[in-house]
Amino acid sequence: MKERIHTTSTKNFREEWIDFIHELQNKICESLEAVDGSAKFKEDVWQRKAGGGGKTRVIANGNVFEKGGVNTSVVHGELSRKMREVLHIPLSSESTKWFACGLSLVLHPINPFVPTVHCNYRYFELTDKEGNVTDCWFGGGTDLTPYYLFEEDAKHFHQTYKNVCHGFDEKFYPLFKKTCDDYFVNTHRNDERRGIGGIFYDHRKPDENNDLNFWFNFSKACGNAFVDAYVPIVEKRINVLFNESNKYWQEIRRGRYVEFNLVHDKGTLFGLKTNGRTESILMSLPPTVRFEYDYQPLKGTPEADLLEVCLRPRDWT
Amino acid sequence: MKERIHTTSTKNFREEWIDFIHELQNKICESLEAVDGSAKFKEDVWQRKAGGGGKTRVIANGNVFEKGGVNTSVVHGELSRKMREVLHIPLSSESTKWFACGLSLVLHPINPFVPTVHCNYRYFELTDKEGNVTDCWFGGGTDLTPYYLFEEDAKHFHQTYKNVCHGFDEKFYPLFKKTCDDYFVNTHRNDERRGIGGIFYDHRKPDENNDLNFWFNFSKACGNAFVDAYVPIVEKRINVLFNESNKYWQEIRRGRYVEFNLVHDKGTLFGLKTNGRTESILMSLPPTVRFEYDYQPLKGTPEADLLEVCLRPRDWT
Repeated sequence: MKERIHTTSTKNFREEWIDFIHELQNKICESLEAVDGSAKFKEDVWQRKAGGGGKTRVIANGNVFEKGGVNTSVVHGELSRKMREVLHIPLSSESTKWFACGLSLVLHPINPFVPTVHCNYRYFELTDKEGNVTDCWFGGGTDLTPYYLFEEDAKHFHQTYKNVCHGFDEKFYPLFKKTCDDYFVNTHRNDERRGIGGIFYDHRKPDENNDLNFWFNFSKACGNAFVDAYVPIVEKRINVLFNESNKYWQEIRRGRYVEFNLVHDKGTLFGLKTNGRTESILMSLPPTVRFEYDYQPLKGTPEADLLEVCLRPRDWT
Repeated sequence: MKERIHTTSTKNFREEWIDFIHELQNKICESLEAVDGSAKFKEDVWQRKAGGGGKTRVIANGNVFEKGGVNTSVVHGELSRKMREVLHIPLSSESTKWFACGLSLVLHPINPFVPTVHCNYRYFELTDKEGNVTDCWFGGGTDLTPYYLFEEDAKHFHQTYKNVCHGFDEKFYPLFKKTCDDYFVNTHRNDERRGIGGIFYDHRKPDENNDLNFWFNFSKACGNAFVDAYVPIVEKRINVLFNESNKYWQEIRRGRYVEFNLVHDKGTLFGLKTNGRTESILMSLPPTVRFEYDYQPLKGTPEADLLEVCLRPRDWT
């Protein structure tokens, strides 16, 4: 990239985005504590030797949440060989430093009728020796991983993000829904998805249609929609009675979640291989998990129905 | 490689190695069923569309073994782009096909005082259009993953393989012990090993010192040593009483086993990304697993002692 990126007006996207994710972290944690009714988030504030740090907030053994985390991090550093490789930045590029700042959450409920959820919204910047921004982009997404399918929950979740997307561009929801379906895939299991998806977008930079401020506002809107997208589903399913066999199935599916995160998820692998904070990255892993040889749900059961929508994503809205 | 590989005499290494691993599979399964005393291996014979197949034998919910598998496979195919990449074979090479044949086992006992064990011994061949062997090598290893450290068990295990190695070359044990310590490492957890190691070697080809027959015999000797290395440890620890907290620790450590296999293990990733049989590859994953945020054993406990030898490998013999 030859020219310096001119962002709109004098807005400082770094600082405004940092403020936003910290406010969002507070808002989300408050909502989740309220719906849990028992457990409280515990915060670990950490520093990164090579630059920056984060606030990891974990919740465990609650009424609703067996394990979960709502993390923010604001990190930066020199562009290492590994980093250039992953971000496809040639050595000839004038960029010498990177900056990343985002919110990331995963929640694993106890009750198998309450879905697991993940979301992540981030802002990335490259700068040259003088500190000028040479490249910058927003990315993120939210996806739902139910263990049992309630169509109305799937519809509610997708409709919430469709509404957000439509406020910006009617092409976004179908595009970002498909990107999500194509991303959270266990390719080693006949392209089984880890759940019923949501939205996902990445590398959204200023272009002829939209400036950086547009993507900033879009990402804020997506982040702000999380509580409305997820909490009503929790409230609806929290008191559904479950038995040991429901829990067994949940743990089998959690195994697939582990497989996706450790084998395929670019964010997880990037973090683990570039000296990220392991405990904050792996807070995404479920609390208890089962791996069974060649486990297959019986045909016609609710478990088989769930598997079916993971193998063949549906249009929910 | 320009010249055709001339292997000693008229010996057909493929056929002899295939016979060997199938006999070894039978021998190991018999020994393990005997020590378990209850569960029997169930066999899945499978074919691979692109060439070859295997015999997957799994054991589950026994007296001793909670989950395990002793698998053989004899597979072959055209050298795909992915395969060339992983094996570092340039497009200019005359090799067009590959052949691989090996035995692979993992056992996860119920009792946390009985260690998990893994071994894998394999023969690999590349051939040109005419079917001439253009390259071939043996590789393999065995490593032990205890949840509690019994020094005499660690010594017995390592001494068994040291004795095997010394029958071939006194340089082997120190070399292959170190290769093993350097391989089964969770680099994302301060280089914590998944256990106390064993031996590991790879790409052992005919060279000025040893012909292919030497590596064939060495690999046979290592494979044959498995029962003597492992079963006496099982017999010694099988009746140690354990409680819930021992089981909890076992499941935490099993989590690290999952992390290694899915994030770092080349064999697992190679299999999953080149259309291997997923169920046979992932039989290595433990039956029940726990992931807890920032879990640390208390200082001075047996759990902390185990962690210590995983962080700083010791000389056991």
